[in-house]
Amino acid sequence: MNKIEHIGIAVKSLETSNKLFSSLLNTEPYKTEEVVSENVNTSFFQMGESKIELLEATDPASPIAKFIEKKGEGIHHIAYDVTDIEAEMKRLQDEGFILLNEKPKKGADNKLVCFLHPKSTNGVLVELCQEINS
Amino acid sequence: MNKIEHIGIAVKSLETSNKLFSSLLNTEPYKTEEVVSENVNTSFFQMGESKIELLEATDPASPIAKFIEKKGEGIHHIAYDVTDIEAEMKRLQDEGFILLNEKPKKGADNKLVCFLHPKSTNGVLVELCQEINS
Repeated sequence: MNKIEHIGIAVKSLETSNKLFSSLLNTEPYKTEEVVSENVNTSFFQMGESKIELLEATDPASPIAKFIEKKGEGIHHIAYDVTDIEAEMKRLQDEGFILLNEKPKKGADNKLVCFLHPKSTNGVLVELCQEINS
Repeated sequence: MNKIEHIGIAVKSLETSNKLFSSLLNTEPYKTEEVVSENVNTSFFQMGESKIELLEATDPASPIAKFIEKKGEGIHHIAYDVTDIEAEMKRLQDEGFILLNEKPKKGADNKLVCFLHPKSTNGVLVELCQEINS
């Protein structure tokens, strides 16, 4: 675990929330990206060495749509930057954490990612991120 | 807004969660601190330029006890580091955000802090932090 790579925030409308977070953070999103495999549109704001990622569902079946239905808009996950995601997955599994992905998968922003089940992490959905080709 | 100062996570037991987060983050908490005014015990883990702050209620009237009662353990707030908290409070109020404190107050970890109402920030409780004597 090197640093907080990003904080993911579930929003109903990326357009509305891009404006809100531009006011709040006093900076514009530096990119937007659709992640087809997750049924989400995302935008990213740089905040020091970390990022704020806004996530909007593109389909009612998206995990983000389900999250908002249950809990409303708000913080969805914390992502930590790791150097070797497979080694970190093995370490965490050995420590008793529950991995939601057996193998790293391609996520937004050119990353390999793996999620940990919030049941094993005090209610916090945790994402591991390794930069591809880093 | 300079960086993510910390992410605050509400936990039932600091003792249990200190162990859990030590395993998860692969590092020990570098300090624990009671914040009497907020009825909480806190611990801090360094993660790059940011921190993970665990918060345990010391009293059923603590906002953290109420949060856990309603939502369960999980992410409670995001704190951003600012250089001039009074200027930032004025800027955000002018942008239409709702401040929960009229004046900066003394928080944990030698900081002046002010909270923003989650209603105005997409469901995310936001804290502004200025290092005292910085």
